[in-house]
Amino acid sequence: MTHHPFDHAMQLLPGATAHSFAGATSPDYWNMVGPFGGYTAALAVQAVMQHPALLGEPVALTVNYAGATTQGPFTVTATPARTNRSTQHWVIALSQTNAAGEPEVAMTATVMTALRRDTWHTNDMPMPVVTPVNAAAKDHRDGAPVWLDRYDMRFVHGSIPQEFDGREASSLTQLWMRDEPPRPLDFVSLTAMADVFYPRVWLRRAKRVAAGTVSMTTYFHASQAQMTDVGTGYLLGQAQAQAFRHGFFDQTAQLWSGAGTLLATSTQLVYYKE
Amino acid sequence: MTHHPFDHAMQLLPGATAHSFAGATSPDYWNMVGPFGGYTAALAVQAVMQHPALLGEPVALTVNYAGATTQGPFTVTATPARTNRSTQHWVIALSQTNAAGEPEVAMTATVMTALRRDTWHTNDMPMPVVTPVNAAAKDHRDGAPVWLDRYDMRFVHGSIPQEFDGREASSLTQLWMRDEPPRPLDFVSLTAMADVFYPRVWLRRAKRVAAGTVSMTTYFHASQAQMTDVGTGYLLGQAQAQAFRHGFFDQTAQLWSGAGTLLATSTQLVYYKE
Repeated sequence: MTHHPFDHAMQLLPGATAHSFAGATSPDYWNMVGPFGGYTAALAVQAVMQHPALLGEPVALTVNYAGATTQGPFTVTATPARTNRSTQHWVIALSQTNAAGEPEVAMTATVMTALRRDTWHTNDMPMPVVTPVNAAAKDHRDGAPVWLDRYDMRFVHGSIPQEFDGREASSLTQLWMRDEPPRPLDFVSLTAMADVFYPRVWLRRAKRVAAGTVSMTTYFHASQAQMTDVGTGYLLGQAQAQAFRHGFFDQTAQLWSGAGTLLATSTQLVYYKE
Repeated sequence: MTHHPFDHAMQLLPGATAHSFAGATSPDYWNMVGPFGGYTAALAVQAVMQHPALLGEPVALTVNYAGATTQGPFTVTATPARTNRSTQHWVIALSQTNAAGEPEVAMTATVMTALRRDTWHTNDMPMPVVTPVNAAAKDHRDGAPVWLDRYDMRFVHGSIPQEFDGREASSLTQLWMRDEPPRPLDFVSLTAMADVFYPRVWLRRAKRVAAGTVSMTTYFHASQAQMTDVGTGYLLGQAQAQAFRHGFFDQTAQLWSGAGTLLATSTQLVYYKE
């Protein structure tokens, strides 16, 4: 436990039942009308990591944003649905008490954990050649949601449009990123970083329409040991859309270490209003 | 209800509780040691589609293969965790009675459904230019698992290696596909078709190692009306790996209609032995 804001935000205490944890939203990771989605996703991984029955390390995560998370306390349940010899499957929910005093689900999730072993390995998605981090300017926006201050982001391609003038463009973004202040990488922080990309629809259309992630899946290709090697180094993140239709678009994303190791691949489905 | 083997295989009857359904595995979609994974994934969507509380159409699905599904009866539970004005979030499990007479979870899943609306739309992942379906040969392998007979597959790139000689290659596969015999496309059959791709590791290494999907996520970009337009036409499917490490590799996939509409995007994490 450090004094880093992310560690404070991720604090979960034992809850009322064997599989439940108690926490509260953090002002440090607040977005416009709720917490930064990467923060909520990270809570699912954090609950699994703290569960005494945990086997191995996270390999796959899916979170579904079922409803608004509001400021205040929440309960996370993380239940091992099946434990095999080297893999384990978790079912997770985050709920809050609504105005009527009833528990209401704000997030559902599944996590798969596994014992990692050495096998044949290769990287079929090499890190793109981009401007080095030292030559990339740190992004800052006046009046931006507070969670953006928790990341050092340096766009090298596809920054937020300077002008929302409706000029259509590619949906590709590439940026260097790390926690602000720096913090050694782990599964929980990597989960959050897979969601730092602003809505592709803003870039694609140069139009600021209401948008929010509804489901996100992340595969972890790195072990904790590999993340320890990354330490507080910058990651290169890349995100791109595939289809926009009927009020939803998808996004594929990759996160590499500075040394070119593909640490995680991710995809998400995002609601957009018009 | 037709006499198509897929419809027989997808039959679910009301179960013992409000959110449960009873079914049994189908010999028609059998793989080597269990059902074809696309069949099991499709059951999760089928349960949601048959639930009387359903709102809208599927937009996102994640299935986790938690353990072996064995031949015989199973129970699928599909519980609406949260229903909003235009979206709904489902938590699903498939379980079977094990040798000790206890229920055991073989699959966990989440589904998001939504009312589709007309919005601005575009396709950022155009269908690749490939050999037309009429000029592509139908794949057939003697002694192959029976589920392969349920699909008309015509590889145009990255077929199963003729020789498993260890010659490394790209992990990209492109193929035309449809149900065999033909069957009008719907969400349930599209779910299954997103899993027809043989393990990328076989292609990448020209080596046949034990492999099996452990988690799969599919986003549906088409409405039922658009699928009705596709009818029994061939889809073009494409799959490619990003990273192989520690006994798991991932795969991204896209499925287009013959007219070039991106119907679904999918990703999966696959176990491989060595």
